[in-house]
Amino acid sequence: MSTAIDLNCDMGESYGAWQMGNDAAVLQFVSSANVACGFHGGDPSTMRQTVAAALARGVAVGAHPSLPDLVGFGRRPMQITPQEAYDMVVYQVGALAAVAAAQGARLHHVKAHGALYNMAAKDAALAQAICRAVRDVDGSLVLYGLAGSQLVAAAQELGLRGAHEVFADRSYQDDGSLTPRSQPGAMIEDLDAAVAQVLGMVRDGMVRSVNGRAVPVRADTLCIHGDQPNALVFAQGLRDALRDAGIAVRAP
Amino acid sequence: MSTAIDLNCDMGESYGAWQMGNDAAVLQFVSSANVACGFHGGDPSTMRQTVAAALARGVAVGAHPSLPDLVGFGRRPMQITPQEAYDMVVYQVGALAAVAAAQGARLHHVKAHGALYNMAAKDAALAQAICRAVRDVDGSLVLYGLAGSQLVAAAQELGLRGAHEVFADRSYQDDGSLTPRSQPGAMIEDLDAAVAQVLGMVRDGMVRSVNGRAVPVRADTLCIHGDQPNALVFAQGLRDALRDAGIAVRAP
Amino acid sequence: MSTAIDLNCDMGESYGAWQMGNDAAVLQFVSSANVACGFHGGDPSTMRQTVAAALARGVAVGAHPSLPDLVGFGRRPMQITPQEAYDMVVYQVGALAAVAAAQGARLHHVKAHGALYNMAAKDAALAQAICRAVRDVDGSLVLYGLAGSQLVAAAQELGLRGAHEVFADRSYQDDGSLTPRSQPGAMIEDLDAAVAQVLGMVRDGMVRSVNGRAVPVRADTLCIHGDQPNALVFAQGLRDALRDAGIAVRAP
Amino acid sequence: MSTAIDLNCDMGESYGAWQMGNDAAVLQFVSSANVACGFHGGDPSTMRQTVAAALARGVAVGAHPSLPDLVGFGRRPMQITPQEAYDMVVYQVGALAAVAAAQGARLHHVKAHGALYNMAAKDAALAQAICRAVRDVDGSLVLYGLAGSQLVAAAQELGLRGAHEVFADRSYQDDGSLTPRSQPGAMIEDLDAAVAQVLGMVRDGMVRSVNGRAVPVRADTLCIHGDQPNALVFAQGLRDALRDAGIAVRAP
Repeated sequence: MSTAIDLNCDMGESYGAWQMGNDAAVLQFVSSANVACGFHGGDPSTMRQTVAAALARGVAVGAHPSLPDLVGFGRRPMQITPQEAYDMVVYQVGALAAVAAAQGARLHHVKAHGALYNMAAKDAALAQAICRAVRDVDGSLVLYGLAGSQLVAAAQELGLRGAHEVFADRSYQDDGSLTPRSQPGAMIEDLDAAVAQVLGMVRDGMVRSVNGRAVPVRADTLCIHGDQPNALVFAQGLRDALRDAGIAVRAP
Repeated sequence: MSTAIDLNCDMGESYGAWQMGNDAAVLQFVSSANVACGFHGGDPSTMRQTVAAALARGVAVGAHPSLPDLVGFGRRPMQITPQEAYDMVVYQVGALAAVAAAQGARLHHVKAHGALYNMAAKDAALAQAICRAVRDVDGSLVLYGLAGSQLVAAAQELGLRGAHEVFADRSYQDDGSLTPRSQPGAMIEDLDAAVAQVLGMVRDGMVRSVNGRAVPVRADTLCIHGDQPNALVFAQGLRDALRDAGIAVRAP
Repeated sequence: MSTAIDLNCDMGESYGAWQMGNDAAVLQFVSSANVACGFHGGDPSTMRQTVAAALARGVAVGAHPSLPDLVGFGRRPMQITPQEAYDMVVYQVGALAAVAAAQGARLHHVKAHGALYNMAAKDAALAQAICRAVRDVDGSLVLYGLAGSQLVAAAQELGLRGAHEVFADRSYQDDGSLTPRSQPGAMIEDLDAAVAQVLGMVRDGMVRSVNGRAVPVRADTLCIHGDQPNALVFAQGLRDALRDAGIAVRAP
Repeated sequence: MSTAIDLNCDMGESYGAWQMGNDAAVLQFVSSANVACGFHGGDPSTMRQTVAAALARGVAVGAHPSLPDLVGFGRRPMQITPQEAYDMVVYQVGALAAVAAAQGARLHHVKAHGALYNMAAKDAALAQAICRAVRDVDGSLVLYGLAGSQLVAAAQELGLRGAHEVFADRSYQDDGSLTPRSQPGAMIEDLDAAVAQVLGMVRDGMVRSVNGRAVPVRADTLCIHGDQPNALVFAQGLRDALRDAGIAVRAP
């Protein structure tokens, strides 16, 4: 269906004296970077350095706002109101937008982090609050969300461009949702299988579920992980396979 | 020398469940509000509410960035590098700018808070870092700093509009600096004396020092405090006196 | 059934420059104080001052550990593991124990705060983790929990003394649980009704439910609120009524 | 002069998802561990794991309290009052003491971290406040401080055991102070030179200054770094050299 896809990666998740990830290496492979904004990682100095590194590589810069949970790295669901979600997204997107502006650049997209991403995928009120926050700050920002989720639906409802995010290293169920990590077959560790899944999603708009069923899926952007042991080999392999298949890698 | 002055007040310094200040009342008297940005007070929801209240009153909204010291309310000097100062100001100004943008407004000015304000008044490198941060985010912002300080000097050097800040409730020394609070006569608690000092500064560009000497001072903006017992009576008295003297109150 | 009850109140919930509550006044009426430990309120200096004030009044000092959510005041449920709950309770109880030790005193009890209290009331694994933490730090501490909850059950299982906590200003349902605040009749604002409820619980071990049914309840400790407008009048009224009824007020 | 010395190392400075240091390896070489207490690193779970690892190796567990500056890793001097220093040390020592108690162990010592250590080395009021805090929590704790500093002097004044800390990888000046890192010759990178310096300090109570002068120094404990590239080789080399010289390695 498509001849292009975006490769995105979470970045700038170091904090103060603590290093995390392998940003410089991953920036070689991706077309967009989701930069942490201080709530789960990413202090102001790390944000500046990360934006500079992304811009130097021509990689699109996006905000990666999170729940306020530094010690939990934004991975623990918290019961927040839609208004709280709205406010924390405005704050974090604004902080990163200024970091970009100070370097003569503009933000390109927003992708919620961790538990906020997962919660908003299923919770329409939360999804709408996040999308309203993004729209109210800058209506030209692209909203990345789990393919087929409430988050992308809310973006479109509110007139934002939504980008459906897919995964190369996760299997899908018959209903198009990701197989929970707790279940067997959730992770795809074989590069060839991952490449095959991605090519199917990009070219045919289809993914083969764990049960072997062809399930329609829209793939605007593919999430690349930078912190697993094989991450860079995987990223390189995906990038090569996309090139060989004539699929362009670029930010939406 | 002048027929107008700005009255500014620190605001939005509540945090989560904790209330501080008397913002709604003070907004009746001031022409510009310095809104806390989360580092010494001011969570994202408080920021939204404070900006909304200021806009409803037609009061100019400014950022009030601070050292990262919530428990110390940004009042404890910390030894930071100019680069760290730059980064934390970019971050905080950006966060508040987005809060304003989400309400269809733009920031008007930046005034550093507490220890950061005091440190930058004397430290040229810190002053320049703060002013570069403000300029890099938005060159149209006005930089408020202690009258005659390094901060205002740095602003002007960098092409920013600087606003010299004066005080009605503090006495001045022969060199134009504030009398330290530890010394007798530092505070001016009598409203008439305060009014006389302000009128002298605005109309004549002069302040009578504690030693009785006439000292030149430039008064672009006057700091109003909202949290002392007599604050509102004082603010009302100053405002009335300025009106009677034919001096307009407006943001620079 | 009983001729004595404890009156407890949350305290020391100021933070840095922010004041909260009316601790000095409330200390006149209670027999035990639950002192915030830094995660939802209560910086180290506030903790010292609060412990000193409680000791001066002869009030038993307890720890009031919370989820790590300063901006949300520990009121927002977070999905934490039992191990995380264990670790954060050990940390906070230890911090306050040292504050007390530095004043020559020992902790008397532990009462979880806000969302942690509510979550642990229903979640047996969380309740056990909290109780293990308390036991491992100091097995002589009393564990306060909602009357009839998992928390008190877990305390008893682990050999801790558990204290069943009841409320004067909340109504009860037929199953002995509190009427949710979202439902009509949840709050008891009339002092006489509150006194009657408390006397019934203490003397007869019974509470009249919102449906008029007599429901058994064990009342070891009664929660007093300090921050509502009528709080002190209410506390005084309850204290007087207990005295008149010959019921002693003392920590368990 | 002595036939024994302690080797200590800062540990448990990971935070949430962020890893730091090489604790498991360093624990092979040291006799005492300074465990971060949450203010500059070391969340409650990391604290538990670090204490468990130290106890499993028979290494003495100490608290490593810090200024409240997570993003600056406690390395930035802050202007705090002695009372604030007292309160933050009580809090952090207590938190770690409970972590140890929950594992059936007791704390052995306290060593301030980073800027707090350096500030208190020179500032008698701060040094006394820290030592009073330690004494008030547990008078049997050993206070580690820079050899010859205000911190050790204050400990002894207050009846605490003080341990004079020396460095193998830093050169000394004629007055017995460390050569500032900004000056040439500050760092000792050669293992043989470091070993010679340590043996001289332990056996003769003397250190050869950068100017070649013999300067008296007392060496109770030697600081081992775990996070530099050569750290483990260095630690192993020092440990071997001490064994060959018949000097026991044990906590004071």
